[in-house]
Parts: sequence; structure tokens; C-alpha cells
Amino acid sequence: MSDVKKVVLAYSGGLDTSVIVKWLQETYNCEVVTFTADIGQGEEVEPARTKAQALGVKEIYIEDLREEFVRDYVYPMFRANTIYEGEYLLGTSIARPLIAKRLIEIANETGADAISHGATGKGNDQVRFELGGYALKPGVKVIAPWREWDLTSREKLMAYCEEHKIPVDFSNKKKKSPYSMDANLLHISYEGGILEDPWAEAEDDMWRWSVSPEAAPDQPTYVELTFEKGDIVAIDGELLKAHEVLEKLNKLGGDNGIGRLDIVENRYVGMKSRGCYETPGGTIMLRAHRAIESLTLDREEAHLKDQLMPKYAEVIYNGYWWSPERRMLQAAIDETQKNVAGVVRMKLYKGSATVVGRKSDESLFDESIATFEDDAGAYNQKDAEGFIKLNALRLRIAAGKGRKQS
Amino acid sequence: MSDVKKVVLAYSGGLDTSVIVKWLQETYNCEVVTFTADIGQGEEVEPARTKAQALGVKEIYIEDLREEFVRDYVYPMFRANTIYEGEYLLGTSIARPLIAKRLIEIANETGADAISHGATGKGNDQVRFELGGYALKPGVKVIAPWREWDLTSREKLMAYCEEHKIPVDFSNKKKKSPYSMDANLLHISYEGGILEDPWAEAEDDMWRWSVSPEAAPDQPTYVELTFEKGDIVAIDGELLKAHEVLEKLNKLGGDNGIGRLDIVENRYVGMKSRGCYETPGGTIMLRAHRAIESLTLDREEAHLKDQLMPKYAEVIYNGYWWSPERRMLQAAIDETQKNVAGVVRMKLYKGSATVVGRKSDESLFDESIATFEDDAGAYNQKDAEGFIKLNALRLRIAAGKGRKQS
Amino acid sequence: MSDVKKVVLAYSGGLDTSVIVKWLQETYNCEVVTFTADIGQGEEVEPARTKAQALGVKEIYIEDLREEFVRDYVYPMFRANTIYEGEYLLGTSIARPLIAKRLIEIANETGADAISHGATGKGNDQVRFELGGYALKPGVKVIAPWREWDLTSREKLMAYCEEHKIPVDFSNKKKKSPYSMDANLLHISYEGGILEDPWAEAEDDMWRWSVSPEAAPDQPTYVELTFEKGDIVAIDGELLKAHEVLEKLNKLGGDNGIGRLDIVENRYVGMKSRGCYETPGGTIMLRAHRAIESLTLDREEAHLKDQLMPKYAEVIYNGYWWSPERRMLQAAIDETQKNVAGVVRMKLYKGSATVVGRKSDESLFDESIATFEDDAGAYNQKDAEGFIKLNALRLRIAAGKGRKQS
Amino acid sequence: MSDVKKVVLAYSGGLDTSVIVKWLQETYNCEVVTFTADIGQGEEVEPARTKAQALGVKEIYIEDLREEFVRDYVYPMFRANTIYEGEYLLGTSIARPLIAKRLIEIANETGADAISHGATGKGNDQVRFELGGYALKPGVKVIAPWREWDLTSREKLMAYCEEHKIPVDFSNKKKKSPYSMDANLLHISYEGGILEDPWAEAEDDMWRWSVSPEAAPDQPTYVELTFEKGDIVAIDGELLKAHEVLEKLNKLGGDNGIGRLDIVENRYVGMKSRGCYETPGGTIMLRAHRAIESLTLDREEAHLKDQLMPKYAEVIYNGYWWSPERRMLQAAIDETQKNVAGVVRMKLYKGSATVVGRKSDESLFDESIATFEDDAGAYNQKDAEGFIKLNALRLRIAAGKGRKQS
Repeated sequence: MSDVKKVVLAYSGGLDTSVIVKWLQETYNCEVVTFTADIGQGEEVEPARTKAQALGVKEIYIEDLREEFVRDYVYPMFRANTIYEGEYLLGTSIARPLIAKRLIEIANETGADAISHGATGKGNDQVRFELGGYALKPGVKVIAPWREWDLTSREKLMAYCEEHKIPVDFSNKKKKSPYSMDANLLHISYEGGILEDPWAEAEDDMWRWSVSPEAAPDQPTYVELTFEKGDIVAIDGELLKAHEVLEKLNKLGGDNGIGRLDIVENRYVGMKSRGCYETPGGTIMLRAHRAIESLTLDREEAHLKDQLMPKYAEVIYNGYWWSPERRMLQAAIDETQKNVAGVVRMKLYKGSATVVGRKSDESLFDESIATFEDDAGAYNQKDAEGFIKLNALRLRIAAGKGRKQS
Repeated sequence: MSDVKKVVLAYSGGLDTSVIVKWLQETYNCEVVTFTADIGQGEEVEPARTKAQALGVKEIYIEDLREEFVRDYVYPMFRANTIYEGEYLLGTSIARPLIAKRLIEIANETGADAISHGATGKGNDQVRFELGGYALKPGVKVIAPWREWDLTSREKLMAYCEEHKIPVDFSNKKKKSPYSMDANLLHISYEGGILEDPWAEAEDDMWRWSVSPEAAPDQPTYVELTFEKGDIVAIDGELLKAHEVLEKLNKLGGDNGIGRLDIVENRYVGMKSRGCYETPGGTIMLRAHRAIESLTLDREEAHLKDQLMPKYAEVIYNGYWWSPERRMLQAAIDETQKNVAGVVRMKLYKGSATVVGRKSDESLFDESIATFEDDAGAYNQKDAEGFIKLNALRLRIAAGKGRKQS
Repeated sequence: MSDVKKVVLAYSGGLDTSVIVKWLQETYNCEVVTFTADIGQGEEVEPARTKAQALGVKEIYIEDLREEFVRDYVYPMFRANTIYEGEYLLGTSIARPLIAKRLIEIANETGADAISHGATGKGNDQVRFELGGYALKPGVKVIAPWREWDLTSREKLMAYCEEHKIPVDFSNKKKKSPYSMDANLLHISYEGGILEDPWAEAEDDMWRWSVSPEAAPDQPTYVELTFEKGDIVAIDGELLKAHEVLEKLNKLGGDNGIGRLDIVENRYVGMKSRGCYETPGGTIMLRAHRAIESLTLDREEAHLKDQLMPKYAEVIYNGYWWSPERRMLQAAIDETQKNVAGVVRMKLYKGSATVVGRKSDESLFDESIATFEDDAGAYNQKDAEGFIKLNALRLRIAAGKGRKQS
Repeated sequence: MSDVKKVVLAYSGGLDTSVIVKWLQETYNCEVVTFTADIGQGEEVEPARTKAQALGVKEIYIEDLREEFVRDYVYPMFRANTIYEGEYLLGTSIARPLIAKRLIEIANETGADAISHGATGKGNDQVRFELGGYALKPGVKVIAPWREWDLTSREKLMAYCEEHKIPVDFSNKKKKSPYSMDANLLHISYEGGILEDPWAEAEDDMWRWSVSPEAAPDQPTYVELTFEKGDIVAIDGELLKAHEVLEKLNKLGGDNGIGRLDIVENRYVGMKSRGCYETPGGTIMLRAHRAIESLTLDREEAHLKDQLMPKYAEVIYNGYWWSPERRMLQAAIDETQKNVAGVVRMKLYKGSATVVGRKSDESLFDESIATFEDDAGAYNQKDAEGFIKLNALRLRIAAGKGRKQS
């Protein structure tokens, strides 16, 4: 274990990763570089500096990655209307590739030969961190303490802290949550505790970002979202950067009780797990994006996107953002977004985000053809006969030859 | 045009299809058989008898197809979590194959050589009726009056009625709706009128089956749905037939403002159209079905279902229910539903249908493995290292050979 | 029919399209512009000038499009390893988009308002010409004489020629073939005649480009093909333009009896038809392209390509080259070809094109890992245990819960 | 390691698995049950009995599984026209599920708690054996000696034999091949040796089952294959069992130099490897199956099959025969094969298997419609206009709105 000289650790500043700093120093007798990023988790990142210093860390990286996160990861993913297993908006999955990339870049800058993270051996996050790491620096050594150490209970962890003089109030959470949580600008997730019983309803005080639908205002909120090339660039006419868009939509959505989700999902490592997610802004974005696409995408590219989406979602969920297959799918998706522009009007009300209007200079909706009124010859109804006859031909031949059709 | 001897008409009893009866008799000099079905549209079908008799029709078919409709068409479709273009639950599309089948069966019983319907030449329904008809009786003659006649405006239609003494109050709608509507147990649809402008919000008094979310009760309603082989068989423990399930869910959903949808969709004939849909029960069913599947389906079959679903939806939307490709997809889907059984608990509140719990004797959720607590060796975290290493191998080799990963 | 002023006709110089020139002039009382292209069909195109002039045509376009055809249409298609229905290399399909594009461009240059072609109403080519035409010039009028006129037998055609003084030796085929044939640099096709019986073997003297395997040399020919970005750029080290590559491979393949194919295929218009195809160069290219990809493509992008290919083939076969879905698929395909470079060595012998070696600077084949000999730790066999254990987890859980696996 | 009481070993009777018998007895101090199957590898299996007895094995299973292998594994796979990565007919992959199933069944019969095999830690076969084992008996212990022991070179293996008095002439191969080989009724595979250089051509004396195309007869062989429900049931009119069909086709193919393949493939464990395969009968079967399908399958089910095939191939290649996703795909595939019946006529000649005719009572080929001659109104060419117009509508609208189509 002595072959590691320097390791870059994804450091939250919390208790667990503080223990990891110490454990890495002791176990591998190596230097630890900490990397703490603001990706919109809603906690100050600067305090991580003092904590890391107190643990003897000399190279400390603290960064605000919110804009990059939304612009280069969340937005491209939403262009595909990405949903995992019909429900999940991939809030955790999409944050990992950026962290992995920065871990590797910092390893290269600091001459580190290893990276480390605080994810357990049961979850998807270890996979996402490590696949990214290996893809970007094939010779990197990965240290996953939760798979190696014997600090497998909270008691042992506390004993380790005491022994190594790690301040236990390191955790900046006022009251220890009974849930395992993860947050970034796209969502906050909850696992564990009573959620381990899929029949048990989540307690209302678990949710952090949104009011309950019952507690939301009795009047709906209307909002207009402006798209360019598939991305939201303005809210109610105000031009915003990507992360500002998401921040504002999180506020609007959370205030109206929007974006709570309670699911059982299939992890890449082979087990089912139950999770609750709060994705206020993302929930609004997804619906709005589909609405602007409904006006501006060609039918066949839209259908092809829908057929590719589950695969794309799986690729991201499983941790293959930094892969040729993701780039290949992204190329197809981005090709379709050139004309996805216009404005979507949405109504937010007590848990629902509903599309009520959409308009676009790039609209392919042709009222003169679609109308129930006189279309002045824009569409020749007689064409439909030949269209149906030839589409039916293979079915008619088969039936004529005695094939059963039911 | 004299080669048609007898034609079976899909007859609603309304003004338009009454005109068609007369027009067929006159234009083709043929006998007309009327077929009127109760598929849950919420209007009496028996009055169609008197109307048809008044028009000189001798063979009159009036049937209650509600159970068959839900059991053999709606339910199989919902097993696939079918959604067209990300939003539409295919309420109109799924009713057509049954009508087409009965038209042909009645043609065979009555010795008719043709079928007819009241769908226009711009829409999808003509395609669905006719593809079904051709698939089930390849030599059948199809008459689509709206593609043939010159009664292209309401004025001409009224003049025709007057000339042929068709009572104009034939229409049993109290007040003529400005929308083109279609209803069955799964949904009611609205097109035309102000909806032809995709930016215009639907008027609140357009909706027929649901209260607005604002007008829904301030207290949530909880409901438990029991599944067997992918289908709902009981509500709150009460065993129900398929159509009774949907009727009850429509009531529950409608009372809670659930199931309103406003979209622009791509028709098979090549144009975009704007439609509003009310699908209270279906909206609840879809979410519940995904929830019971989340507990009982294997990951890979679930993902494969998701990849096939858009194609399956397209097949149904485009009118190919009676086709080999639909049967092929259905075989795959049904193969997965054998163990989709259990109970889903849902909360209905002001427009939202939210899953709050699910349980099943067939559950593949293994709490002893998934737990954040001590799992007593049920899962060996060290396995994850090899899992990740080999999944990363192709990425590492590529990176090692200098391939860019970003 | 008098609303057409000028029409651009895809003119082969043969009898049928010569009749069409006259028929268009008479029927539509319009000016005819002829367009004749060399796309490698193996016949002189210049004679079409005199013939067109004799028919009174004033604007005559004769062009050598061989390079553009192979470079911009054939090559992009081969990047996807495109095969329709498991067998057909799409030789006819891929030539139509270029013809359609030029017809429209010439219409724009000459101020024509219509285009015309000599394809029948039963085949795919009418669809391909017209979809391309409409996609590139939405208001264009299309005239398809074979769907309109009554010259439905050879006798009537001959009578028309006599009546209109069209020289019947216009046809430059020495001996009238009993087959309907179409040729370009990628292939020559045969339909009709005895081929209409799918059980009848094609006569050996039907084939034009290749010797029979029996008549091919008794010694194999070896050839080395150099790829860059997925395209062949050199043969046996000699740099060649795209069409020169295909010309040379056609010669090599044809001399060795390679590329004959006899199939029943499904046309877009709904019927099955039997066709024979000779694709000597294309058959070699396809195998070689797969071989160079086998060395240079990542596994997952390769598999994804294979999954998309049937759809891509269908899009081209059905005539949708000029469509958003084709561009979307092309974007995905081209994204994968950046590193598809290297040399493939093939053995050509009596009907077979066999890969016997491949090498590449971009190779992802890692002999140090793949070796059966000592790999010096490049691969840790123990990783496989965890890999298998976690991949098996979902199966083990299901089996443990009593699910039947067979 | 003492927790294993009895282990069932897939025993070939060769040197390596004989060493494994001894090593298991010594290392795990457990009883070994041997299982040797004839799946058409072309070697006597009965001698394995004496060898196992000499090693002290008491429970010895020797079975002829040829019919079951072809009928229940090879045939279902060929119904899908299964090819991995465009070339490989999955000859090794498809034999493993049956072996895994029998290992588990024998474990259940003999009360064994473990299974073992002789596959290395680098290949796919370990995965296939073990996934099958875990899927069928979730609590089974798997012992993979090649991943555990230190007998990592031939020298060490020989030393072990000497030490443990294992007769080295155990190997019944006359001359030790420089290749790693695997054979069954579907194919024989070669890896290693000079093949580790993908540029090196395979030596002609490597191949065992087929003559070279050069050495094949100068006269073609014609053969007629009769299909029922997608499976070959007779050759030249003679009814045969599944394995007899494959044996006969192997002979016919091998005699005519058919079925040699040389590829680089992507293994599931993440590396590329080069392999040569001889699949004489399978190569003929695949082409013949496509030919009978071309006559009897509907277009859309055929295309859907083609789209699903790469996934199905991947599932089998990766070892997931015993999985819900394989059963789901098989259900779809088998649904299409009900009417896949008839006769295919093939020409075998110096390396090529060419279809020259096909006929079927279930044929969907309609000569009266497809004919170039007068079709007596079976097909109305004017229908094509409406068909094209509506298929073009979306493209025309887009072009009319200024969308670029190129």
C-alpha cells in the first residue's frame, strides 16, 4: 500500500470525508490534496479550507463549478429529455462526471498518482467516479476507503475520530438527518432510514427544498421560458446564465410544491434501492423542453430521440459520461437541437408544472394545414386514400394469403 | 360507384354520421348497416336505434363494448407504459382497433362488402379504421365520405340536412361545442377552435371530466391499486372488472383535477396538431403500473421495455394494432408481466397522482442487500472493485492509446 | 394540366425517357429540360445530347457526378456498415438522393416549376426521387408519367414512338435485356423476367459485371485497403479518389466473381419483390470496413452502431436521405469514425472476399492484455470475480426469490 | 476454503481439467463430480470415464447432449439471424448455457454445493458458466481455478502433473496445437499463437473442419433445406433431427470450404481479441434462414427483428442466456416464426453459400402485384401519389418554413 505518493480526495468538509483524509494519510502514508466544489448543494464550501488545513492538508482546491455544471452537463442531458426508468431525472448521476474530471485534472496539476472518494461499495457513485477517473487518466490509482477499511459502523467511525482527534462537530448539519442525502443544483436525494421499506410513505419533514403541494400557494404561478438550441436562456424575458436559470426554477418549483419523487430504482451494481428525490427546476425544464420540441422538431427525429433516450439515460446513470457511446449519442441529440427555440408558457400550481402555451419562430406547426376550417387546398384529403392503401398493402396481402391478424 | 351493395357504418347517432347514412344510401345506392358502440364515451347509445330507423336502416347494431375495450386493448397497452411523444396516453388511438374489428365482423355477418366511417381526411382515425379494416378483411371496400363528398362546410351540411329532411336536433349535445371532441373510457379529446393557436391557453370550461386543480378538494385522496400480471384487478381491495377499474379511477382522478394534458403532436399523415386530453384514470394507472414494475421487474427487462415502448406507441398511434409487429412487441411485453403483481398506494391531490408506497409478494427489492446498515455479508463491497475495473478496461485501453475522452 | 411551364426530366437517353420528353411536351404543353448524369452506370452519357436535341430540348444538362456520388453518398453510407434486410447493399437507393438534388438545383437554375422521372408507380425509386424533390423544393410539381399515362404496354409505347417519330433504336442496348436493370458505380440490379418466380435460379448470362465464381481465376488475389476516417483512401498503397477506389474494387471484385446477390426484398410501397444485384466493390468495402472498425472502434459504440444500422438502412431504402432523421443518424455515425484508420488485407477468391489481416496506428487491440502468455500483470484475473458477481446479482436475487429462470 | 463439500466440474478429459480435478481435491479437500458432455466437439467422451476414475472420482456423468444442444439452443438463436459484431455466429457462446444448466442440475442431484470449470479469468466463458450457474442456483459456490491458482505457465502445470502423478498423455490430441481451441456442433474456434497479431494471416493447416476454398471441388453442390417454424427439419427432402441437420450441413459446408472466419472481437471483460472460427453448417443455415424469412415474414416484423438482433446477440455473447431479457427477446422472435416455412435452394461452391431459390406455401410474395407485366388492376399505381405526398408532408412543411435539408 505504499505505492501511492499523493492522492486527490473529493472532500465535502463533512465528517466522513474528514475521516478519510486522516485514514489516507495513515494507511497509505501519502499526501492528501482536497477538492471541494460548489455545485449548488446549498452549503458553504469555504469552511472546508479550515477543516482541511486542520487535518494537515497543504494543497486545497475549493471551486465554484455551478455554471459549468449546469451548462456542460445538465443542459446537454436535458436536450435528450432524459429520464431513467420512466421517472428519475438523474440528479446525482449527472454531477459525478464533472467531479471525476476535476479530480483527474487536479491530480495532473499536483502530480498526484491517485484519487479517492467517499462513496460506498454498494452504490452507483463509486462506479461513476472511478469510470470517469480511469477514462481520463488510465493509469490512475483509485482508493475507495469504504471498500477497504473496517470502519463499517458509526460507532467505529466515532472511535476513529476520537483516537485521531478529528472534531466530531465537523459535520455542519445541525441535526443529523436519518437519511443519506446528496444535493446539487439539479436535485437533492434521500435514501436509507424508513425509506428502506418501499411501502412506507416518506415523512413530510424529510423534504428540504420544496413545500408540500398542500402548503403551496392557492394561486398558480405562470412563467415563460425562452429556449435557444434546446437550452433555456431566459425566464420571463430575463436573460440568465445556465445555473441562474436552474436556481430560479428551483425556487419557483419549490415554492409551488413541484418536483418530489418517490421511486424504487435499479442500481448498476445489481440491486434495487428506494430513493426520494426533489427536482423542482428540472421537473419544469423537462416538460418545457418537450413542449418547445413539440413545435420545432420533425416527427421522425423526435421519435428517434425517444427511442435513443433510454439508452442515453442508462449510459449516464451507469457512469459512462466519459465514453465514446455517450459522445456518439450526444452528437445525434445535439444535431436535432439547432432549431429548438422559442417560448413555453407554464402554469405552476400545488405540485404540477403544466404547459399551457408554446410559440416559436422555428415552429413547424402549420395552422393553414391543420385547421378544421377551410384550408384553401393546402392539404388534399384525397391523398390520404393512396397513403392508407399502400400502407395497408402488406397487411392485405398477408390477410389474403390466410394469415391470421389477431 | 355502384359496385357497393351493403356498407357497415360506424354510427354515433350524431348529425355528421346521420348525414353519412343518407349520403351513402343516395351516392352508392346501397343498404346501410349501422354500428353503434358504448365504449364509455358517456352518452346513451340506445337513442341511435330510433335515429337509424328513421333513416331507413334495417340492420342496426348497438353494443356495450366497455369491458372488452378496457380488458383487451387498454390494459395490454398499459402493460408497456405506453406514451406517445413523451406525453400522450393514446386514448383515441386505442379505441379504433376494436371499432375496426367489429365493423368487419358485422360486415361478415351481414354480408356487407364495404365499411364506412366519419373520420376526416386529415386525421389519424381514418388510417386506424382503414388499416384495421384491410388487415382483417383484405378485399373490403372502404368509403370515407369526408374524403369524397363536397359537404366541406357546416353550411353545406345543414343544407343537405334540410334537403333530405334529416332532423338537425339529431345532435344530442345541448350546446354545440366549439371543439372537435372524442371520448371513450380512457379519455376525452379536444381539438380545433382556439386550440388551433398553440400559444392560446385552453379555456377552463372546455374540460368535461375533471375539475380544475384549483377546484379540487383541499385534502388528498389515498387509493390502493392491486395488480396481477400487470393489470389492475382491485381498488382499495375491491375486485373489479377492467372497465369498472377505469370508471372508478376516472371518477377519482377527475374529482382531484388529475389527467389534463395540452400538447402539440405529430400526426401520421404528416402535420402537427394541437390537442387537449383528459385522461384521469389512465394517468393514475400509468404511474401505478411503473411503480409495481419498479419492484417486480428485472432491471434489464425493464430497460428493454423502455427502449421498445416508443416504437410500440408509434405502432398503435399510427393505426397498426392489427399487425404482425404489434403482436411481436406484445409478445415481448406480456412475457415480462407474469410476476408484475402487488399493491401500489397513491396520493391524489389537486392535479397530481403521486406514488407513496408499493409492496409485492413478487418483489425483487432485497432490503438485506440494499440496506445502509450492516448487511451481514449479503453483499461483498470488494466485488465492486473488479466490477468497475473490468467495466473500465476498454476506456482505460483507449485512453492509454491516446484517445481523447472529452 | 396547363399549369406547368417548364419541367426538368431525369433523362437517360434511352427509349422510355425519350418517350417521356415528347409526352411531357404534348401533355403539359411545357418546355422540357433534360438532365443526364454519369454516376458510373457504364454507358456513355454524351449521346444523350443529340437525342435530346432531336426531341427539341433546348436546355440540356450532362454531368459527370461519379466522384460526388461515391464521396458524398456511398462513403457516408458505408461508414454505417449499411445493409437492408440482412443482405442488400442499397446500390439503387443511394443513387437517388443525388439525382433528386440535381433535378431541383437545375429547376432552380432554369426557372422550372416541375421535375419528372421515369420510375414506375410500383417501385421505390418514385418515392426516393419525389421525397428528395419535395424536401429540397417544397412547392415543386412532380410529374410521374408512368402513374399518369396509358402507355402501359410495350406495344402502346412503340405505337407512340411511331406516331411521334421517335427513333426506336434510341435504345443503345444492343440486345434488349429481358430484365429491368439499373446501374451505377455501386451496383447493377436486375428485376423482372424469370426472376418474378423466386424459386427460379438466375441465368448465368444475366450477370454483367462479374464472372461466375467458377470462371474466376484459380489463384486468389490479395489486396490492401487503407482507411482514413472510415473511408478507403488507397488501394495497395496508391492514393485514389473515392470513385476511383470503387471503380478499382469493382474490377477486382468482378474478376474474382464477388458480389452477386439474389434476394426477395420488401419494398416501401408494401409488396415483396425479387431482385438480383451485382456489387463487387461494395461487397469488398463492407467487409473491409467492419475489419478496420473491429480494431479501432470501442465496443459500445460499435454495438450501438449495429443497433442503429437497420433503421439507417431503412431510412435510405425508403427514400429519406434528405431528412432530419438521416442527418441525426449520420451525426452519430460520423462521430465514431474519427479514428477508423489503418490497413485491411483481403483475399479475393472465386466469389469470396475474406479478411486475412488488419493493422492500425489507432488500434485498440492490446496484445499485452489479450495474450494467452504471461501478461506481466497487465490484467488482474481476480477482477473477473467481482465483475461476474455483481453482474449476476440481479439474477441471483430473482432466483433466490423463487423466480423461474428457464 | 474448507467450506466446499462437493463440486461438479465441467470435465473434458484433457490435461487441464484433469489437473483441476486433483487441485480441487487437494485445495478444497472436497469430493469432485465430473461432467463430460458430447456436444459435437468431435472427440470421444467415453474415455473421460477411465481418466476420472483414475483420479479418484466416484460420481461421473458422461452424456450425449447433441440433440438438446442444437434443438434448444442453436435453433432458437438462429431464428433471430443472430450475429455478433457483424460477423461472429456465437458458436462458443451458445454452448455454455447448456453446460451451466447441466452443472447445476447435477449439483442438485448429487448434493454438491459448488461448481467449477476450466475457463481462464480473461475470457467470456467464465462469465457465461458462472452467470448461468448463479441464475439457476443462486447460492452455488463457483470455483474458477485459473483465477485462483499459481499454475500460470505450462511448466508449472507439468511440474504439478509430475508431482501428482497425472499422466501427461492424458491429452488425446495427437500433436499439441499451438492454438487455444474449442469445438462443438456449431463451430470450432482458434485463438492464441500467431493469431495474437491481427495482421498475421492464419496458417492454412490450422483449420480442422473445412478444406480451403482452393482445395474444394470444382463443381458446385446444390442442396435444398426445408423449414418449419423457422427451423430446418429436412435436407434434400430427408427429415432429420436438429443435430443431424447440423452434422450434415457441417459436412457439406466443410467439403466446400465454407464457414471460415477471421475476426477481432470485443470481449465482455473489456479487451479485444482475435479469433478464427469455422462454422460450416451455421454459415449455410443463417443465409438459408434469411431467405425463407424474406418470403414469409412481414416487412415490419422483419425490420423489428433486425433492430433487436444486435441486442439479442450481445445478451448471448455476454452470457445472459438464463435471463429475463433473453426470454423477453425470445418471445418476440418466436412470435414471428410461426409461418416461417418452406424450402430454400442453395449453391455451395469454394467458400460461398449462395441462395438461388426459395418457395413456400406461406409465401407473402405476390407475383400478380409485383409483376412488371400487366397486373390486371391488382395494384393501383395512382395510390403511390397520395402515399408519397403525405409521407413528404412533414419535409415540405419544414422546407417551406426555411429549414435547411442538407
